[in-house]
Amino acid sequence: MNILLVHAHPEARSLNGTLARFMREHLEAAGHTVQVSDLHAMRWKATLDADDFPARDRATPFRPAGDSQQAYASGQQTRDVAAEQAKLLWADTVILQFPIWWFSMPAILKGWVDRVYAYGFAYGVGEHSERRWGDRYGEGTLAGKRAMLVVTAGGWASHYAPRGINGPIDDLLFPIQHGILYYPGFTVLPPFVVYRSDRMDAARLAQVQAELAARLDTLATVAPVPFRPQNAGDYDIPAMTLREPIAPGRTGFGIHQVEGGA
Amino acid sequence: MNILLVHAHPEARSLNGTLARFMREHLEAAGHTVQVSDLHAMRWKATLDADDFPARDRATPFRPAGDSQQAYASGQQTRDVAAEQAKLLWADTVILQFPIWWFSMPAILKGWVDRVYAYGFAYGVGEHSERRWGDRYGEGTLAGKRAMLVVTAGGWASHYAPRGINGPIDDLLFPIQHGILYYPGFTVLPPFVVYRSDRMDAARLAQVQAELAARLDTLATVAPVPFRPQNAGDYDIPAMTLREPIAPGRTGFGIHQVEGGA
Repeated sequence: MNILLVHAHPEARSLNGTLARFMREHLEAAGHTVQVSDLHAMRWKATLDADDFPARDRATPFRPAGDSQQAYASGQQTRDVAAEQAKLLWADTVILQFPIWWFSMPAILKGWVDRVYAYGFAYGVGEHSERRWGDRYGEGTLAGKRAMLVVTAGGWASHYAPRGINGPIDDLLFPIQHGILYYPGFTVLPPFVVYRSDRMDAARLAQVQAELAARLDTLATVAPVPFRPQNAGDYDIPAMTLREPIAPGRTGFGIHQVEGGA
Repeated sequence: MNILLVHAHPEARSLNGTLARFMREHLEAAGHTVQVSDLHAMRWKATLDADDFPARDRATPFRPAGDSQQAYASGQQTRDVAAEQAKLLWADTVILQFPIWWFSMPAILKGWVDRVYAYGFAYGVGEHSERRWGDRYGEGTLAGKRAMLVVTAGGWASHYAPRGINGPIDDLLFPIQHGILYYPGFTVLPPFVVYRSDRMDAARLAQVQAELAARLDTLATVAPVPFRPQNAGDYDIPAMTLREPIAPGRTGFGIHQVEGGA
């Protein structure tokens, strides 16, 4: 299949750089076609601003959503943004790979999301009515494609455990997995997380690569994170709250997954 | 008191731009001294990379943490980063103001965190022993200072409610409030959130400003979010998991706040 790897580490000789090369080689050896967006090598522009919309009317205030909508609809986006959207449309599976910095993605990758996820492409898609609230959360431009995070963390696994001080890793990744990947339609695969990334010797690297290879070999088959689709009856519209008979009395990120799912 | 406002919106004539000017004027009228870091106006460099460490040994691989540690300890950081650290040390209260884009902060502000939060300044502070795991989560360089988020969201309040599809706003902000503000020592004040930011007429803006003014008037007195300090006995060290007698059987972000707190 076609696989897009979006890689966001500033040093090719880092653990993340090593894992990016390993993934590309492993996937190509398995017969897949791989494109890599190496954001630092591309010197990706991280900041969304009016410069992203050269055709806009400069007499009016810049509106991030409105100007994005206009540029996307009229084919007047910048070339770098349009190229990344084309890669997303080409891909069957997208892998976002990054070190967790301050409990989220590095700025350069957030800026890839902010800029590539145009209005009309990743949001503002579909109709709003009494029965639908746009094509999002399970529907949308990227529906039918799979996406997966491959991330490193400096802390220990226990620090990200269900009672760990940093917060559970699944909850820390929810804004990305649910809010950035599931929102525009991706089917989200369980993440691959490497802890204590600063304590990596050759033996442990070999083990990490073996585990990562095993995950890559099941990209097409592994059960996804069972997020609940928005427009299939689980949510009240337009309040967009989970209907009361479902997960009664419970709150939090976890209720937006089907219980008993993978 | 001394107040630092870190502002991250690309358009001065936006709602966020309007609220930033309103905050500055209101705080100065109340006798406070205000500095504003207007990241777009400053053309803030969002991407952390080797260019941030001009004095580093270019023959060796770039190490984000290690090179940050070296540059901070030896006074060889870039001028823009050192200036922001000085503002943080000067401030009694820090306000981060931004539009929520893709369930987090815009890239330019994440890049402010990635670059300004140096090793030795915001992390890698204090000793690790059987009784302490560094000065963090309630201790650290910025201890004794208050911090607050002022954010806008395009969605409705119900979409961010405890059972809302986007996830509860307090959970979405946890990686920022706990992981970015509480971690280096800030006392975290409850956030100020404006929903449906794209539907703002003059009457509603006046109401929002009145509510914001009331919050600004209580910066010194409002009860903070009662996050649990790391080194005061609540956590097992070095596992950094919440001790079993506390919030027994519970998991998730919420257990890292004292129950019955504000």
